Amino acid sequence: MIRPFNFSAGPAAMPEEVLQIAAAEMLNWQGCGMGVMEMSHRGSEFISIYENAEKDFRELLSIPPNFKVLFLQGGGLGENAIVPLNLSRGGLVDFVLSGSWGQKSFVEAAKYANTHIAATSQEAGFTYLPEPTHWNLRETASYVHLCTNETIHGVECHELPDLKSLGSSASLVIDFSSHVLSRTVDWSRVGCAFAGAQKNIGPAGLTLVVIRDDLLEQAMDICPSAFNYKLIAQAHSMYNTPPTYAIYIAGLTFQWLKKQEEQGYMGTLAIEQRNKRKAELLYTYLDNSQFYFNKVLHSSRSRMNVPFFLRDESLNEAFLKGAKNNGLLQLKGHKSVGGMRASIYNAMPLEGVQTLIEYLQDFEKTRA
Amino acid sequence: MIRPFNFSAGPAAMPEEVLQIAAAEMLNWQGCGMGVMEMSHRGSEFISIYENAEKDFRELLSIPPNFKVLFLQGGGLGENAIVPLNLSRGGLVDFVLSGSWGQKSFVEAAKYANTHIAATSQEAGFTYLPEPTHWNLRETASYVHLCTNETIHGVECHELPDLKSLGSSASLVIDFSSHVLSRTVDWSRVGCAFAGAQKNIGPAGLTLVVIRDDLLEQAMDICPSAFNYKLIAQAHSMYNTPPTYAIYIAGLTFQWLKKQEEQGYMGTLAIEQRNKRKAELLYTYLDNSQFYFNKVLHSSRSRMNVPFFLRDESLNEAFLKGAKNNGLLQLKGHKSVGGMRASIYNAMPLEGVQTLIEYLQDFEKTRA
Repeated sequence: MIRPFNFSAGPAAMPEEVLQIAAAEMLNWQGCGMGVMEMSHRGSEFISIYENAEKDFRELLSIPPNFKVLFLQGGGLGENAIVPLNLSRGGLVDFVLSGSWGQKSFVEAAKYANTHIAATSQEAGFTYLPEPTHWNLRETASYVHLCTNETIHGVECHELPDLKSLGSSASLVIDFSSHVLSRTVDWSRVGCAFAGAQKNIGPAGLTLVVIRDDLLEQAMDICPSAFNYKLIAQAHSMYNTPPTYAIYIAGLTFQWLKKQEEQGYMGTLAIEQRNKRKAELLYTYLDNSQFYFNKVLHSSRSRMNVPFFLRDESLNEAFLKGAKNNGLLQLKGHKSVGGMRASIYNAMPLEGVQTLIEYLQDFEKTRA
Repeated sequence: MIRPFNFSAGPAAMPEEVLQIAAAEMLNWQGCGMGVMEMSHRGSEFISIYENAEKDFRELLSIPPNFKVLFLQGGGLGENAIVPLNLSRGGLVDFVLSGSWGQKSFVEAAKYANTHIAATSQEAGFTYLPEPTHWNLRETASYVHLCTNETIHGVECHELPDLKSLGSSASLVIDFSSHVLSRTVDWSRVGCAFAGAQKNIGPAGLTLVVIRDDLLEQAMDICPSAFNYKLIAQAHSMYNTPPTYAIYIAGLTFQWLKKQEEQGYMGTLAIEQRNKRKAELLYTYLDNSQFYFNKVLHSSRSRMNVPFFLRDESLNEAFLKGAKNNGLLQLKGHKSVGGMRASIYNAMPLEGVQTLIEYLQDFEKTRA
């Protein structure tokens, strides 16, 4: 079977190999007589799945030992409240906005903290990440919130800011949902990072949080226990029943990722090289075209989410219909931005991007 | 392949047919070229899965049109905070306790509301449900919280209380996690019901909430948006990305349930008849035995979770080892209660209970 290429922004395409293993093990995981969905989260079978998933995730992202990894529920929107409930102490929080997700986080955090926009590119339609040297940070802020890949606007932060060098003693909190595991992370610059799973990890309904030990002690009294980072860390993510099947699929994805090779690289470095190639190919094609265009500043362009437009928007429907007929799915842009969007996460092979470019060329030829 | 019988309290055994369909459709759902995990939650494919799941769930439980069904994340422990954040208005909430889950809910709600124990069986080790006529309810309480099946202690409420007839104008909130869909529900007595999925519905990480329309308008300002019942209801459970794969599995389980037949009954009524038979068989055996016993008052015994003890506890390990060798898995009791526990949810066939009883007999014969 040749599967179509699925450019969904999330939930998104999964590695075929991961799905094949999951299907084969559905009724009987490694001979134990139970499927993974049916296992007690306290049993030795699931504990081994969980421990391997955590170990592999740490290894792939080189997470230092003074950070905890938490597997929980609630998604990115849940974290918009859970993060300030755990980290703001009801005090000052600064936001840098380069898209919808940062903006949503900012609005939600105002329920719990004294919020402030340190920088935004809203006036330019969120087409770039504001330069760190221009951020208007407050000295006494608990943390600075930054969405490091804006899924809808296609804006990515390619070098994490060093808050200390900017004169701030705040911790950096990053929402790295839509580019987690697509590149390495400089943990020396991060206090806390969170990611919904449904782009690069696995099924929707699982959220990963990576948090420095010293930040675990600050939850507000009104923080629900099920979302209290300290309680979750103490219980090794078993404070309440975790989303066990999603953790299993995440673990399979991590194993797949560790096996990736590219031009002498392995693991996340390999996937980062491949992601660079995929993005370069697609942006280069769009930039050289008179028929399509992308609005994002070159230095802020996302390797994961590539929004683009047809200059003649009346052709949008025909474009999408033709794409589907050519096995290219879910290319419609987010309703708040319009146009098209190709999400080219880890699971999208180079071949998928090449096939998309061929279709872009063909469509242009017949319609230009 | 003969699968072992899995008596886990949750995550728990799933119907084999459900797992088989899920495995077969893993890479390609109904010819669309995507697996369910890979679908946008906004696409027509997933919307149809979601709508069918909701429709079937409503039909199985005869949920009246003035109730909303919400699919969300967070589990039972999450709901312990989410319910008071949505329904208490920071005012008075009464609790009836007949086990660990009620107790946990009570402790958590105190963060948000003025809580009060209207009745408890703690002094008797949670071996019965206190009689409603003895509940000490407060006139101005917003709601009364009752866990209608205590998974750990094996105590079930077999007739929902009519709060009006008890002189209360409060709404009844039930945690029916561990017996949802095992029996019919008298919705005229309920304001809100919630259930974690991992017993009778599907994978851990999905929570279902059934709530009467008029209760949707009461969330506290500090309620996280992602857990605000009104926002979730307005967005048809798509306020944030829902746990899509878990909803799909839940939908398959609902379809399986609708097809169940038993002595002229169909659907949940059929499963209720079968559950009665299974529980009667097991309790009757235990009651007639001098070797095993169950501590729960007959009228409060759970059809889903049957905790039992060997009179000679030094035989516990041998019992569990022999059970596993006979294809009977996860019979160890919860650590807070000890002994054994057989969870016999919907997916446990009559044959599983019969096989367990045969093993109980055999073990008794060789060891008594």
